[in-house]
This record gives sequence, C-alpha cells and structure tokens, in this order.
Amino acid sequence: MSLNIIKEKIQQAIEILNEKNIDMWLTFVRETKVSKDPIIDMIVGDHLTWQSAFIINKDGDTASLVGSIEEENIKKLALYGQVTGYIQSIREPLLNYLELKKPRTIAINYSKNSVLADGLTHGMYLILCEYLKNTSFPKEVISSEEIISALRGRKSKTELAIMKEAIAETLKIFDEVTSFITPGKSEIEVANFVLEKVKERNLQTAWDSATCPAVFTGPNPSSAHSGPTDRIIEKGHIVSMDFGIKYKGYCSDLQRCWYVLKDNETQAPEPVQKGFEVIRDAIQKVADAIKPGVMGVEMDDIARNYIVQSGYPEYPHGLGHQVGREVHDGGAGLFPRWERYGQTPFMRLEAGQVFTIEPRLPVDGYGVVTIEEEVLITENGCEFLSTPQKELILIS
Amino acid sequence: MSLNIIKEKIQQAIEILNEKNIDMWLTFVRETKVSKDPIIDMIVGDHLTWQSAFIINKDGDTASLVGSIEEENIKKLALYGQVTGYIQSIREPLLNYLELKKPRTIAINYSKNSVLADGLTHGMYLILCEYLKNTSFPKEVISSEEIISALRGRKSKTELAIMKEAIAETLKIFDEVTSFITPGKSEIEVANFVLEKVKERNLQTAWDSATCPAVFTGPNPSSAHSGPTDRIIEKGHIVSMDFGIKYKGYCSDLQRCWYVLKDNETQAPEPVQKGFEVIRDAIQKVADAIKPGVMGVEMDDIARNYIVQSGYPEYPHGLGHQVGREVHDGGAGLFPRWERYGQTPFMRLEAGQVFTIEPRLPVDGYGVVTIEEEVLITENGCEFLSTPQKELILIS
Repeated sequence: MSLNIIKEKIQQAIEILNEKNIDMWLTFVRETKVSKDPIIDMIVGDHLTWQSAFIINKDGDTASLVGSIEEENIKKLALYGQVTGYIQSIREPLLNYLELKKPRTIAINYSKNSVLADGLTHGMYLILCEYLKNTSFPKEVISSEEIISALRGRKSKTELAIMKEAIAETLKIFDEVTSFITPGKSEIEVANFVLEKVKERNLQTAWDSATCPAVFTGPNPSSAHSGPTDRIIEKGHIVSMDFGIKYKGYCSDLQRCWYVLKDNETQAPEPVQKGFEVIRDAIQKVADAIKPGVMGVEMDDIARNYIVQSGYPEYPHGLGHQVGREVHDGGAGLFPRWERYGQTPFMRLEAGQVFTIEPRLPVDGYGVVTIEEEVLITENGCEFLSTPQKELILIS
Repeated sequence: MSLNIIKEKIQQAIEILNEKNIDMWLTFVRETKVSKDPIIDMIVGDHLTWQSAFIINKDGDTASLVGSIEEENIKKLALYGQVTGYIQSIREPLLNYLELKKPRTIAINYSKNSVLADGLTHGMYLILCEYLKNTSFPKEVISSEEIISALRGRKSKTELAIMKEAIAETLKIFDEVTSFITPGKSEIEVANFVLEKVKERNLQTAWDSATCPAVFTGPNPSSAHSGPTDRIIEKGHIVSMDFGIKYKGYCSDLQRCWYVLKDNETQAPEPVQKGFEVIRDAIQKVADAIKPGVMGVEMDDIARNYIVQSGYPEYPHGLGHQVGREVHDGGAGLFPRWERYGQTPFMRLEAGQVFTIEPRLPVDGYGVVTIEEEVLITENGCEFLSTPQKELILIS
C-alpha cells in the first residue's frame, strides 16, 4: 500500500467529516495482526500490537496514540500530525487528547450494515466505554459507517488508475483461459492454469486461491463459492469462471462464460444462447439505469425481474457489490431487500464508487450462465471498467 | 491447518463446556476474509461470507448455519453434526436451533482481556441482540474467554509435536545466523539472510517479515517492534535478534544474543557478561517457579524485580505471552499489573500452555541483551521447548 494513497485518504476523510459534520473519527484497535480492523490498511498501513488510537478531526488535526514499542514505526510513516507513545495504558493520553479537542460527536468503527465499517470488536467497545465513563465524553458516539462508506467508495484518481490496470491484467488471463479450455480437462486443471498465470505475473488472487478462480462446468455445478472440482469439461457444457486479482493493494472481480460446441454444432444451441443473452442484457439494463442517487435495491430489481420474467429462477445472491482494496468492499450494494443485507440495499449510490454486476441463471442440461462486469459510477451514469462480454465465447 | 486438529479441538471444546458448565458456545461471523474472528481457524478452517454460526454444545451436539453458497463447502469439511444453509436470513434457522436446544447459558466471542477471544465485532453483537430480542433467549449470554483461553492454551499432543518441530527449525536458522554475523554487515543484511533461509525452507515468518526477524546491533537500537535498519554491526556491539516461523499452522518466537569481540578481546567485557547473566538467570528463576496455578504477574515480578535489583531499568513490556497458532496467542500472560493487560496477568496458568519468557536490559555503550525462550507448562513445573541460551555467543 502506497503511503501516498494513505495520505490522500486521510485528507479525504477530513473532507468527509466536514461534509457529514462529524467532529472526530476515532479508530481504536489492538493486535491488528490477529484481529484486524479493515480500515487500518487504508489509514495506517501498518500493524499495531497494543491498544492504539488513530484520530482524524473535522478541523484537520490528526493524531495517533500507540504503544511505545511502535511509536518509532508510526512516526516514520509521517501520516499523523501527532504521534504519542505510551507504556502502561492508553487511557490517560486518550482522555487528554479528547479534553484538548472537546469533540461533540465521535464516530467509531461499528456497523450492522457494513463489515468494512465494523472493525471495532465488542470487547474493545466495552474497553472504550470504560475509559469514557465518568468523563464528559462522549457527548455523542455514532457509527462511522457513513464516513468509511464514503472513504472506501469514492475512489481517487490514483485508486482508479490502479483498479483499471488490475482489470486489464485480469482480462488478459481470461483470454489465455479461452485458449486453454478443451473437453477432457477438469475444473481443477483450469484453475491451476490460472494460478500458474497469476504466479508468473507475481500477482495474488483477490480471494483465497482455494476458490479463486472458481470454475464451473456443465449442468448442476457446485454452488457459487465452492472451489473447482475434478468434474471434466465435456462438449455441450457451459463453462464459467469467477476470478480476480489483487494488484498494488486493489482487487478485481470478474466472470466470463464459454460454451463448448458439440461435434455437429457451429453455434450454441438456442437455450444456451438465450440464457446468455438474458444475462448480458440484464447487465446492460442495469448499466443504463445506474447513476448517483439511485438505490442498489432498484438495480437488483431490474436484473432480477428481467431474469424471472424471461422464465428463469432468480439468482440466490445479490446483483453486485463494491470493489476496492477488498473484493467485497462494503457500503452500499446492489442487493435485494433480504434481511442479511441490512440497510445496504437502500443506501444511495455515489459517483466514484465501483460495483460489480453479476447475475446468473441456470440453463437446464447445459450449465450456469454468469457474467460479471465492473462499472464506475460517474456524475450522470456509469462507465464499464471491464470490456463487457457481449458474445458467448465458443470453444470448438 | 489439518482437519484432524480441528476435529480434536471441537472435541476438546465439548469437554471444556462440561468443565465450565456452559450449555452452548456460539461463534457468529460474516465476511471472515475481511474481518476474521481468530477462532475460526481453530474450529472451522475455512472462510465464510454471509452471516454464519458455529455452535458447540455441552451435550456434544454441534451445528453450523451458513449461507447457501457455502453450505456445500462446510458439509465437505464434515466437522459439524448438522450443517444448515439459508438464503435470506440466518435469523430463522438460528432461532429454530436455539428453540431446539434451549440453552441456559450461551457464550459468545467477546473479551476485554484477550484479543483471541474477542472476534465478535460490535456491529455483529448488535445484530445478534436484535435476533434474540423478544425471544426467550438468551437466558444468559456470557463471554467465551474462558472457553477460548482453555482451548487455545491446552495444547494437544499433535499441536505440541508441531510446535517442537517449529522451534527446532527456528533454532537451526539462529545457528546459521551465528556464522553470518560479522562486523560491517547491517541489520538489514542479517534480516535478509534470515528471510532467505525461511524461503529456502518453504516456511513463513511468524509475523510480518518487515519486523521478523527484528535485528538490533549496538547501543540505543530501535525499539522492540521496529524493523531492522541499515545500522552497521561493529566490534564491541551486542547483537540480538527476535524471530519466529509459522510451521504447519503454528508459530515459534525466540530471541538470541551475540557479542562481537573487539580486536584485543577474547571474552565479552564485564558489563556485557554481567548483563547477559542477569537475563539468563532471570529466565531460569522464572522457569524454576512457573507451574499450574500460579499467576503470570508473579512470574513477571520475579524477572522484573531481579533485573531492577541487579541495577538495570525494568523492561518496558511484559515478560512473556502464550504462543500457538498465533505468535501472541492470547489468554493468560506473564504480564505486569498494567492497565493495558487487563485481567490477563491474574489468570492462573494451566498445564499444556506454552509461554515465551523474554526479558531484556540495556548495557550502556554496548547494546541490549535479550533472550527469549519457550516453555511448556507441565503438571509440576515447566519444560523448555527451546534449548535455552546459557552462554553469550561470541563473534570474532
């Protein structure tokens, strides 16, 4: 993670605090190697052992309070205006700092909706409450989910440039897979081929390599988050792959699908072609509608309804999620109104966010059609960051 | 992580629930790739995306409730008696299961004292409370810290065998470092040499390779958790190194120290020799006293008082911590009565736990003496898992 991006993000956080009128944002962590608040990568970029606080204020002041053994490390990063080391307890320096700043509102990292804004453990929450008990703080403690959601969602130019490179690299690997797929190879062989390409390029997979890439061939394949199996690619199979890389700290996440022609075929049979087109067109319909201010649930509705009206079962997951440093980067999502998604389907989308669009449908007897694209929300609509798959790729 | 160890650990958890008379232990997680409850490695060993529950009961029943996309993965592991997949919300299957088991006490993963037992985020805690609201559950929700502390602390034979191998491998690398250290080399060169050895053996470092190994040469070196610098090893320096590996899922953590003879010296000067002996003897005094039932703070007192009485400043950290799957494995520690350590200095030690003992002291004009050993608490005392450093290693 480049220190420059972290500096950009800390400045952006100050702007967001002003926009949301929140006096102070307090990130409170310990032993981040074991139990990591996911925002630490974005605003610190180093591990902390003892209880540590990273504080960003609306007035532009920034401070960090860390164990003395890590004071030197954190000072070297030169990210926070003030770095204070302590030996016995963070309580005193923390209360002193609060006394100095007298914030009316303090945002801390808990969220029912977004795992990326939910880095504070319940035990650490209780410790913080204990420190603040019998002080005049907090006047008000609130969730930082709006801050983190904006901070992760609104990609800077530097971030977008990296994400575009990540997508370009990923699509090159998909192209190589097209030449590799042939009847008789197993899902695992395809996956190993991809992992070899990742290794050759000194990249990492966007998620665990046991399920990245996920490769699915033929009817009734494993469920979406399963790893590749020894199932063999046969003529007449739809093959699909879900894959992304981690590149300079940022993830890509894409899916492509192929059809393996039977001996007498020169094109995909009608049910496969129709299934493909429904998925392709569902994505385009969402791309046509998506823009700042809409709710993700409306986008999920567009794709879900179109697929169901076309005679297919609805996909058993959300339409798309944000991508960034994490492959599931939290905040607003293109999700249905299912309880497990909390409030995230109802958050308004903002320019600068990057979403996947990834519907799927089964074609009886052939396999599952899935395509996954990445789009950037622009001022008036969206821009595809991936070159969208418009045609089924035929393997002969 | 071997599935066999996870199976052993789930069985051990059932025994611990009986010993502590707790009806149910509920681990509640989501998106574990982003925000990991550290116990997941030990009782599941796979990633979860949607809200998921892993339940172990005193009566021996076990169950997991997971998103439908991961149901197949979790079933394949064959760790839990019952695996239930859901699509829209975990609420209903979770409440159904509680209704079935009617637990009087439910332990969940939050802890002020141990980060390893504090995997439940505050947002997830609030979600769980919401699910349980207006039901007859919980009769009582408690912290699982006693369960997790016992589960991580009491090493099985399989775990101990792996940890001994990890220590043996680590000491071999320390031996090679003895041949590598010479005046004129920098801390970074020594660290790179070690990282090369780690790579050759296909191992991983126990913590981030930016500070593992940590190498310190000469007077007033960087603080304990700093990375190696370009400071040059000179004649008359004390050199020390803090280093560990991750081996088959388990960590080692050891320190050794060396003295670089000046041209006219055949042994270390008196102040260096004395400093070394004080550290060496402090460790032995602790090893002589440590046994099940004592408190860690008493052990820290022994070393700290001996060092101060010998005329040196006290070390600015705890005497030692548990080691296991994590290098700082949580639970009881050999810690001073400082607020930041919470209740962990006062927990009674148990047989089967593995602790580091790692005091340090500065020798003016020469450098810092540190030694770190690992000991296993036995029925009556302890056993050194590392061959203790009894002599200062001289470099000529």
